[in-house]
Amino acid sequence: MLKRLFFPLLIVTFVLSALSHYMHWGSEIEFVLAGLAILFAAGLLGKATESVAHYAGQRIGGLLNATFGNAAELIIAIFLIKEGLFDIVKASLTGAIIGNLLLVLGASALAGGLKFKEQKFNVHLAGQNASLMLLGIIALFIPAIFVKTEKISQQETMSISIVVAAFLIFAYIGWLVYSMFTHKDLLDDHVDTQADHGESPAWSRGTSILMLIVATVMVAFISEWLVHTLDTFSARFGLSELFVGAFVVAIVGNAAEHSAAVMLALKNKMGAAVEIAVGSSLQIALFVAPVLVFVSLLFGKEMDLIFTTIELAAIGVSVLIATSISRDGATTWFEGKLLLIVYAILGVSFYFV
Amino acid sequence: MLKRLFFPLLIVTFVLSALSHYMHWGSEIEFVLAGLAILFAAGLLGKATESVAHYAGQRIGGLLNATFGNAAELIIAIFLIKEGLFDIVKASLTGAIIGNLLLVLGASALAGGLKFKEQKFNVHLAGQNASLMLLGIIALFIPAIFVKTEKISQQETMSISIVVAAFLIFAYIGWLVYSMFTHKDLLDDHVDTQADHGESPAWSRGTSILMLIVATVMVAFISEWLVHTLDTFSARFGLSELFVGAFVVAIVGNAAEHSAAVMLALKNKMGAAVEIAVGSSLQIALFVAPVLVFVSLLFGKEMDLIFTTIELAAIGVSVLIATSISRDGATTWFEGKLLLIVYAILGVSFYFV
Amino acid sequence: MLKRLFFPLLIVTFVLSALSHYMHWGSEIEFVLAGLAILFAAGLLGKATESVAHYAGQRIGGLLNATFGNAAELIIAIFLIKEGLFDIVKASLTGAIIGNLLLVLGASALAGGLKFKEQKFNVHLAGQNASLMLLGIIALFIPAIFVKTEKISQQETMSISIVVAAFLIFAYIGWLVYSMFTHKDLLDDHVDTQADHGESPAWSRGTSILMLIVATVMVAFISEWLVHTLDTFSARFGLSELFVGAFVVAIVGNAAEHSAAVMLALKNKMGAAVEIAVGSSLQIALFVAPVLVFVSLLFGKEMDLIFTTIELAAIGVSVLIATSISRDGATTWFEGKLLLIVYAILGVSFYFV
Repeated sequence: MLKRLFFPLLIVTFVLSALSHYMHWGSEIEFVLAGLAILFAAGLLGKATESVAHYAGQRIGGLLNATFGNAAELIIAIFLIKEGLFDIVKASLTGAIIGNLLLVLGASALAGGLKFKEQKFNVHLAGQNASLMLLGIIALFIPAIFVKTEKISQQETMSISIVVAAFLIFAYIGWLVYSMFTHKDLLDDHVDTQADHGESPAWSRGTSILMLIVATVMVAFISEWLVHTLDTFSARFGLSELFVGAFVVAIVGNAAEHSAAVMLALKNKMGAAVEIAVGSSLQIALFVAPVLVFVSLLFGKEMDLIFTTIELAAIGVSVLIATSISRDGATTWFEGKLLLIVYAILGVSFYFV
Repeated sequence: MLKRLFFPLLIVTFVLSALSHYMHWGSEIEFVLAGLAILFAAGLLGKATESVAHYAGQRIGGLLNATFGNAAELIIAIFLIKEGLFDIVKASLTGAIIGNLLLVLGASALAGGLKFKEQKFNVHLAGQNASLMLLGIIALFIPAIFVKTEKISQQETMSISIVVAAFLIFAYIGWLVYSMFTHKDLLDDHVDTQADHGESPAWSRGTSILMLIVATVMVAFISEWLVHTLDTFSARFGLSELFVGAFVVAIVGNAAEHSAAVMLALKNKMGAAVEIAVGSSLQIALFVAPVLVFVSLLFGKEMDLIFTTIELAAIGVSVLIATSISRDGATTWFEGKLLLIVYAILGVSFYFV
Repeated sequence: MLKRLFFPLLIVTFVLSALSHYMHWGSEIEFVLAGLAILFAAGLLGKATESVAHYAGQRIGGLLNATFGNAAELIIAIFLIKEGLFDIVKASLTGAIIGNLLLVLGASALAGGLKFKEQKFNVHLAGQNASLMLLGIIALFIPAIFVKTEKISQQETMSISIVVAAFLIFAYIGWLVYSMFTHKDLLDDHVDTQADHGESPAWSRGTSILMLIVATVMVAFISEWLVHTLDTFSARFGLSELFVGAFVVAIVGNAAEHSAAVMLALKNKMGAAVEIAVGSSLQIALFVAPVLVFVSLLFGKEMDLIFTTIELAAIGVSVLIATSISRDGATTWFEGKLLLIVYAILGVSFYFV
């Protein structure tokens, strides 16, 4: 029933959002409509990517998922960069990382843990993910510490950012080769995760590709409308742009992953839920963030990779607690609760900035 | 023999401490007598709590232990708050956490390790404890980093502290439900730790409750006398209040746990020793510290949860090394030595502040 | 073939380096010749230490290796201290620690991992090493945080440094007793690592001792020549002294360990390779660095143990990622690649300071 309503709802919210934008219905209503529309469009984009991936075969499909899995975030960020809103880009990247590691993983572990006593998953993958996340935070921390401590010019900062971004993409490509080709068996969860995600694809091959294009275009349009409402919205509700970027935008942009992961956890497929949550964070840190540095150069702008101290602290503690909890390859309801509490503590702290 | 002398010694030191306080025998002698008296009274309080817990049955008993296990520290801290000595409160909380994680755990592992080659304990519990301690330091670090980095008013700082304190107590309650009800079997050490601690209770049910009341009242009195000597004492010996709070007060207040844990380790019951040391730290970070924030409000004062940088550093490294050492569910003499060396390094550094 | 050329090459580079130094051929050529000569001389020193260790028996031999394994670094550092170049000493210690943990371990894991799917080693040793490295960074971080945050005089800083240095040496002695005597069996890699390193010694007992003396004297001479070229060299190529100390000197000084570890990894003896890389870092942090504090006092100079923020950050992240990767007692090519990428990120950042 809900599934059937999904597409009409997307069309309705998309049209309403377009109308509200071009006819200037007011920032609040524009923000709400764009938020609803992007929530559905991001969901469609995810479904379409999965469906195309299904027809493309396991390897190319995995690659597609790995590259376009966060396409919505990427597109939103590109529009923010075009407007020069680098601070909100970084806040939303931060929000996406901590949202996946704390909110998505926490809600999945809590929901699944209330139904099943202990939910296990591949311990090798957990360890590997931990090391990769660590690389991600090292790549963000090291340049930041150097820039904040030593006398480093803006130009040198940009040079460091570009080199580090290139290394991160290089590491991410290595990870794809490693996890999909050379060491696939070691990291497998002894379940067909491909099947877990998409079950059977909703559309034929042709429709899938069409849907992918439609969803991408829609996300692109709505992103632009959404971006324009952000500052009036945050001013109206007395929220800092940091809070809006890190919590509001990130939660809206991640809603699809969120519901998918919780559903999987409730089916006792915690391995797949972890893969969505942690995999998505890794993709943002090791792929989306560095790609955006190069995207900014294409626009003739210069977005460096230097995050603020509190963003780094938020990312750091999220990685720390998420890896501490997932390292043993098992989760329980209490561990889910812990992750959600850390998310709430970060939310409260960001709210007061 | 020593057991029989215990109660008379408590009475004698209590009376002497009272006399020295009301007759003004001088700060040094008042401090020494109050220190001795509180050492015995804290021991009695611990014994009485255990004994009452024994009669109350395993679950209510466990709850009592978990809530009143650090009653002495709590009472001392309340008197410090009444006097507005927030800095010493935080120093003594810091001292209690690092004292339990480094001194108590270290001495237990070293003493036990000199007798037994390797001492094992429940590896699940160790992992769970590590994640909980991590929550504790995150809850202390995040507000501190935000307050020290961003422009946040004292009123907002207090708001953040209250919310974070509420979340910590919420997490602690979750932990009690988790470890005593839903996942008790998973965390059990395959030994009756209840029996380990108290063996058979020393007193009848009625006497136990009487002793609990007597000990609580005594600790309350001595705490007030002790607090009054602190500043003259620290001035007299050229020690900073920070050092006195974090090392002198904490060691005196923890003496009972300390000797109990070492005794258990010498009986090769390292699991119970770890539970005392780590459990006590967790209780301070997740229960005593946040409760004190609310206690301060009752007194019409406002103690926030923002610790100093060096206190946070001390707590952070203690958690890091203690979890690194206990994570594998086994300790050796050398790991005990490592913990003690870190404690010594912290002691030396605090001494020079 | 290469082995036969080794000794003649050492003699030739040593003589050329001596000539260039005394006849002032110019900083660049002096630096290159001294670099080549010290590379060969450090290799000879390592070989001679191993050979003498072989004849001395396993225990004394292990002790010799543990004490003189980084003799070349120690000698270079002593000459730097004599010249008062404390900053370069600390940079080169930093460089040796991160070089071993990232470059040597990373190259070994990558090279070995391209040949073997997964390379396993003693998981107990990995855990123990992690705790020890943690002690090392705690000992460097704590005094630094106190000194940078609180008002602590230079004299007090020196006192803290001396006490901490003494504790580190005390911990290192404990580690030797622990790993060579009381818990040797627990940490053994089920292979004769002694044999792995040296196979059969190249020289007779007498020749070995002679070689040890010759190599020590050579390293001492070349170190002095090398030190004198450093500032003109770094000025000439626009490199900071920090970069030269942390990367150029460290790579040259570690070349012998580096090639040995990679060779072992290619023979699927990853345990021995890890022992070289991590063992060498431990030796620098827990033995060489604190010994140098006392050495500086002998020269009537005062080198404290306070490293710069970026040096501490570099050491901290190196330990974090190396322990995260080695903790499970197995490495793969991708983990090697990760370590090398972190090394490259640090290299780029230091380059721009």
